[in-house]
Amino acid sequence: MEKINLKEKLSKFSDHWAPRIIAEMNDYQFKLVKIQGEFVWHDHTDTDEVFIVIEGKMEIEFKNETVELNEGEMYVVPKGVQHKPRSDSECKIMLVEPRGVVNTGNTEGELTASNDVWI
Amino acid sequence: MEKINLKEKLSKFSDHWAPRIIAEMNDYQFKLVKIQGEFVWHDHTDTDEVFIVIEGKMEIEFKNETVELNEGEMYVVPKGVQHKPRSDSECKIMLVEPRGVVNTGNTEGELTASNDVWI
Repeated sequence: MEKINLKEKLSKFSDHWAPRIIAEMNDYQFKLVKIQGEFVWHDHTDTDEVFIVIEGKMEIEFKNETVELNEGEMYVVPKGVQHKPRSDSECKIMLVEPRGVVNTGNTEGELTASNDVWI
Repeated sequence: MEKINLKEKLSKFSDHWAPRIIAEMNDYQFKLVKIQGEFVWHDHTDTDEVFIVIEGKMEIEFKNETVELNEGEMYVVPKGVQHKPRSDSECKIMLVEPRGVVNTGNTEGELTASNDVWI
């Protein structure tokens, strides 16, 4: 097992909304994602999902509020809750969620990415 | 659900080796800990454990190697593997592990802390 440097891993890809797996703990995965622009409304029926901002800032829109997250801030989106991540400028984040989660949850579409790409 | 600012949470306590829970995702918890000096050799029989360095640097000693972790680096200690965290100067870290894990694993002693303190 090698240690994992988050910024070094982030330097290895540049596309948006395409999560890369960097570590597994039991049946949970840590993923890095670069985001910019608007994602799609979706939810994850079976699991909570953790967002941690590594660099930049982002918003998570909910039906009744919007949460702004800055570097060093995290948020737990509860399972079954509709949300839409967005960011005006590029933001680098880490996700923590069970192995196998699809980024667009129940809303498959053109932003749906592979859920099995390691970096 | 409020967003969680890691440095703001870290500013709220100063003791060492006493994890504070800051978030729960399903049956997993995110904990902040300040460490300094030598911990005890221990393992967690039933679970992997994730270390993420928020500020400072630390080492994790294993029986056959020592891993140095700097700010922005993470490590997954596999279940059942004996390890001893240590740090010459104060280091601020985040742990991710299932709810209920005890910090000293199978080696109860004077550094054993409560596993149910939220901050």
